[in-house]
Amino acid sequence: MTVAELAGQAVGTWAGHFVDHQTVDDVERMVRSHGLGAVATFGWNGASDVLLEDVIETVNRLQRTAIEESRLGIPLLFSVDAVHGHAYVENATVFPNGLGAAATWDPALVERSASMTGSEMRATGAVHNYAPVADVARDPRWGRTFETFGESPFLVSEMTAAAVRGYQSGSARGGPVAATAKHFPAYGGSIAAEDAAPADISRDSLQNVYLAPFRRAIAEGVEAIMPAYSSVEGHPPHGSRWILQDLLREQLGFDGAVVSDWGGVDHLHKDHFTTSDARDSVVRTRRAGMDVESTGGADHADRLVALVEAGVLDVETLRASAERVLRWKVEYGLFEDPFVEAWHADQIVGHADHHAHAREMATQSLTCLENDGILPVAPTADVLVTGPNADDPVAQLGGWSVTDPDHTDAVTVRAAFESSHEGSVEFVPGASVTDRVDVDAAARAAADADVAVVVLGEDWYIHEFGMEVITGRATGEFPTRTHLELPEAQRALLEAVAATDTPTVAVVVGGRPLILDREADLADALLWAYYPGSDGGPAIRAALTGETSPGGRLPITIPRSLGQIPITADRLARPRPIGDDEHYPDYDPLYTLGDGQTYTTFETESVGVSPETVGPRGTITVEATVHNVGTRRGSELIRVEGSDRASDRVTPVRELVGFDRVTLGPGESETVSIDVPIARLARYDAEGHREVAPGEYVLAVGDHQRRVTVERQYH
Amino acid sequence: MTVAELAGQAVGTWAGHFVDHQTVDDVERMVRSHGLGAVATFGWNGASDVLLEDVIETVNRLQRTAIEESRLGIPLLFSVDAVHGHAYVENATVFPNGLGAAATWDPALVERSASMTGSEMRATGAVHNYAPVADVARDPRWGRTFETFGESPFLVSEMTAAAVRGYQSGSARGGPVAATAKHFPAYGGSIAAEDAAPADISRDSLQNVYLAPFRRAIAEGVEAIMPAYSSVEGHPPHGSRWILQDLLREQLGFDGAVVSDWGGVDHLHKDHFTTSDARDSVVRTRRAGMDVESTGGADHADRLVALVEAGVLDVETLRASAERVLRWKVEYGLFEDPFVEAWHADQIVGHADHHAHAREMATQSLTCLENDGILPVAPTADVLVTGPNADDPVAQLGGWSVTDPDHTDAVTVRAAFESSHEGSVEFVPGASVTDRVDVDAAARAAADADVAVVVLGEDWYIHEFGMEVITGRATGEFPTRTHLELPEAQRALLEAVAATDTPTVAVVVGGRPLILDREADLADALLWAYYPGSDGGPAIRAALTGETSPGGRLPITIPRSLGQIPITADRLARPRPIGDDEHYPDYDPLYTLGDGQTYTTFETESVGVSPETVGPRGTITVEATVHNVGTRRGSELIRVEGSDRASDRVTPVRELVGFDRVTLGPGESETVSIDVPIARLARYDAEGHREVAPGEYVLAVGDHQRRVTVERQYH
Repeated sequence: MTVAELAGQAVGTWAGHFVDHQTVDDVERMVRSHGLGAVATFGWNGASDVLLEDVIETVNRLQRTAIEESRLGIPLLFSVDAVHGHAYVENATVFPNGLGAAATWDPALVERSASMTGSEMRATGAVHNYAPVADVARDPRWGRTFETFGESPFLVSEMTAAAVRGYQSGSARGGPVAATAKHFPAYGGSIAAEDAAPADISRDSLQNVYLAPFRRAIAEGVEAIMPAYSSVEGHPPHGSRWILQDLLREQLGFDGAVVSDWGGVDHLHKDHFTTSDARDSVVRTRRAGMDVESTGGADHADRLVALVEAGVLDVETLRASAERVLRWKVEYGLFEDPFVEAWHADQIVGHADHHAHAREMATQSLTCLENDGILPVAPTADVLVTGPNADDPVAQLGGWSVTDPDHTDAVTVRAAFESSHEGSVEFVPGASVTDRVDVDAAARAAADADVAVVVLGEDWYIHEFGMEVITGRATGEFPTRTHLELPEAQRALLEAVAATDTPTVAVVVGGRPLILDREADLADALLWAYYPGSDGGPAIRAALTGETSPGGRLPITIPRSLGQIPITADRLARPRPIGDDEHYPDYDPLYTLGDGQTYTTFETESVGVSPETVGPRGTITVEATVHNVGTRRGSELIRVEGSDRASDRVTPVRELVGFDRVTLGPGESETVSIDVPIARLARYDAEGHREVAPGEYVLAVGDHQRRVTVERQYH
Repeated sequence: MTVAELAGQAVGTWAGHFVDHQTVDDVERMVRSHGLGAVATFGWNGASDVLLEDVIETVNRLQRTAIEESRLGIPLLFSVDAVHGHAYVENATVFPNGLGAAATWDPALVERSASMTGSEMRATGAVHNYAPVADVARDPRWGRTFETFGESPFLVSEMTAAAVRGYQSGSARGGPVAATAKHFPAYGGSIAAEDAAPADISRDSLQNVYLAPFRRAIAEGVEAIMPAYSSVEGHPPHGSRWILQDLLREQLGFDGAVVSDWGGVDHLHKDHFTTSDARDSVVRTRRAGMDVESTGGADHADRLVALVEAGVLDVETLRASAERVLRWKVEYGLFEDPFVEAWHADQIVGHADHHAHAREMATQSLTCLENDGILPVAPTADVLVTGPNADDPVAQLGGWSVTDPDHTDAVTVRAAFESSHEGSVEFVPGASVTDRVDVDAAARAAADADVAVVVLGEDWYIHEFGMEVITGRATGEFPTRTHLELPEAQRALLEAVAATDTPTVAVVVGGRPLILDREADLADALLWAYYPGSDGGPAIRAALTGETSPGGRLPITIPRSLGQIPITADRLARPRPIGDDEHYPDYDPLYTLGDGQTYTTFETESVGVSPETVGPRGTITVEATVHNVGTRRGSELIRVEGSDRASDRVTPVRELVGFDRVTLGPGESETVSIDVPIARLARYDAEGHREVAPGEYVLAVGDHQRRVTVERQYH
């Protein structure tokens, strides 16, 4: 291959509204002139194609150009942001966004949703996904919290691994697709949770919090890693040898492709000011180990050729990057079958089985935080449905999904009640996300109803803002990162409805922990639905009325006030110079990791560990017997928390190290068995080494604590 | 010296209420039995002695015991927490607390206050001060913010250096005393600003933010360093070789004594869980390089002897520690003159010159944030004085001072107005810090007055809480770190007074940036007085009435809302993936570093830099001409900010690198000249190396930006 041909494979471009507007014609010209290897014409915000038939037409047209009008006939790689379903394509199945997916605490559900996403992607010609999000969300002000699997390095790791398996194995209906774990290494650690701000985190957090999910993704064979926008210790990841070579390839052993985040290369000279110009940014990122500039286009390809010819860049570096891309194209079958067909895509995209799974996932994600006994609602109850997110399909999908309601067949809470509820159903808007609409009318309707369902929450957004340019609707200063309370209009609506004394359920559709202290007080029941996706409405209705039950548990702590942030369950040990007497209750979070109620009651007993003494490479089996002592069927989450008192470094007081779920009918019981490699309790040091110190450890299931001992090993 | 004698010199103890209550008799017994080298019987919270005559008696009694009843006759070292004056002794001069001192932007004032503090200490027999605080305050929730010199590494460094010089050089009235820079290395970086929580900070921040003041203190020859409670990368500083040897002694070149913070050794096994028991903590801290266990007492001394005898601890390690203490005792004259006299102490402690200086410092610290033209107040105006901090001497002193109003001769704002104001003065309490008292009466009195002075703020606290056990008054949940708004009662008082349309001045007496957006709107003028000390009342009165003028400028950013935290002026460069269009105004702070108004108007012009090209070890002289174009005398702060665009690492967009103050009459002008070594703009890397990259830098005074070039050096 010529240098220009190698360069083309290491560069991609876009069609639609990004830095500039580019049409598919523009892309076609660049494919012809520069042999660009990767394009994104659909599957992201602002893409040129959303409608299924347009997507198919564009894919086939560009593939034909790439194959027939180039010397080597190499097909194109289509890359998409299908982070919770292939959700930027008309009527695709949209699964709950990351935080909702994590609330299921069921990696099998996540794996299956990923495999279904892969099949919908393949049916439209995309074989590379910019997913899963492996970031750990430690501060709910961060506008990408909703995309993550939450705050726990272990839970995020399990879910990330499940998603990688799902994408890269595919399903009976298609796939697999190449997965991308993003954003390496510590996007979730940005200062004041400002999106893309530097991550001012310690190496202890880097190694033990933020890198954990990437380690698991690499162990699962993830094909690609995307560097983060956030610099670490002064180093923007896209241009850092320390991050992309020393950490990613050497410490973590990654051998796949590093694909840039959009704009991530130009940020070096434009925003981070760590390079002097665009040429310097190309040199820096390539030497650091970036393989694909996802949006570099013709300019980046030209610079690569010039740099190689000038002897500034080693051609072998470029060849290694191109080979990684070409290997994908072979592995994922593009040389065999690069074209797609509309009739086939139409059968796969939004398949009924996928929607059924999306609904099941949503059901298992719904997290009941308060229930004064009014749930489940009787099927015959007369219901008022109100609130900004009761009938807004776009808000229900959340970010990284279509923004035009005509492009989704999502069923809202209102539609679900109106189509399936036995009692009468009235709908009054009440309020928009930020403004009162007809609060008084909602209160009057509530007075006449048996139950009021008030669906509150956040609007559609990505990164941080409402992005009016994309959604076409202004969200003002909510959601942003400066406050996490629901806007006054929503609080007023809930207050007015609750004041009627009609039993009131507050359902929050939104992507991050909001400050819900007042809502918890006002409402008789409080349910967090996250962004539940296309089938969220029916899932919420069925759970509220007892056809199913809310299956979710919090994957993230909900603070009581902004002043508590950041607050996580894996609190590190520390002294309290002033003493424990003065620890005010308002220092505790409102709800913590794992919280969530069922319609029944569980008791956990007879927790055992075996063996009680292991070597540093040993595994402990934790057995816990769970009883359903209530009167309804339900699902319980068993969490194993670990505590390392042997280490001579500061470690979390308690930290999630294992979990399982069990579903039991009334009176049933079951013993679950959870394997915990003892190394899971040990911490990596600043250099990425992990040593299991001999000594005492504690494993706990709820209040049941068991000691285990790690013996000293003599070599 | 015997091992036991060496051990005694490396251990101190206390008299008063700490972990247990110990009397002076108890201390005397331990001095006899174990030859303890250091004691703290006064000069801190809960100490046994506060009254001057008691202090003198105790000091002489214990010195006599140590000298006359030990084999070697070594005198004792008395250590105190005289962080803003010798403020735990009856009627001592109390200077503004750290943040107020920093607001003067005048290191000479700070140096002089430290030398005066040293002379008051020496007069009472104390020759070792646990000051200055060299911590950098990056999050105003931190309960020790008020003790610090603010957010800027450069300003904190200058002030820390000035304080070290002042303590260690003494004044004509006495001194010097040994200074302690505390708390090493990153106490201000604790998670969620919880006091003593781990500092989850990057090595970039560690090197460039938190270590900076310690580098300067060491360059000034500071005698002692105190490790922090907060662990870094899993390492509690008291027991960390990495922190105390690699960072402190090797990288920073410190050769003095490491003295423990109180409880800092036992925290290792009791709270950090990094050692197994007390014995292990002794081993770990001694091997790490701690020299003095400030509160270890007989137990610690016994353990030391046993560990040396068992061969676990090297006697030379212990000898080195003891020698550091003994060198102090020689240098600071204890072998020559260990005793003190009541008549002499009575002359020095609270000397009129010291009070005059305390008042001048307070004047220069007062920071006028808003003034709709009502300041200065006419001398003949009838004034209402109201609010919780208008007549509370203890709150006016702030933490690290006596808590009994009978132990201070501080003059409050009320007393100052009542004794010195020409117009009539009425005082109505209005509200306590947390509760309404007589808000309506205050509003009625305001309606009758020409001007209302509402003195709001925080109560006395240390670390984080009100510490009812010490102050004897409950502060409920304010101040704590979960919210920074003034309590509702104070807001109600200001609202009621302002509603009368009588011109209203809000004065905030408190130690950290509070969320003052509503107060700024309600009041016609807003003045932050920090904790102004014993002479704060007269200083505030004189500044409000135009006898003087408020001289302070903010040493720390005041956020607009809790959701912005942490927010500092030295913002690191970063991309904004969403774009600048969506940067909402409410993302900007309410006030920023350097803000503060005068009663006149200044213009800065003709800013020049020379030379414009330097080598990496060069110094740039910045010249700026300042005009007083207003009608009153006043003082202007000239700040030089630097920007490093040459580095290949991420650096602050603008960062304080130099400053000076100039006082001018109406129509006067002056050219100030500020030297900036170019290395001050460069950043240390993770390993503590600093290299000045060749290339472009920017130096700015306000909007005046000047480029300078660092040339490549060939060796």
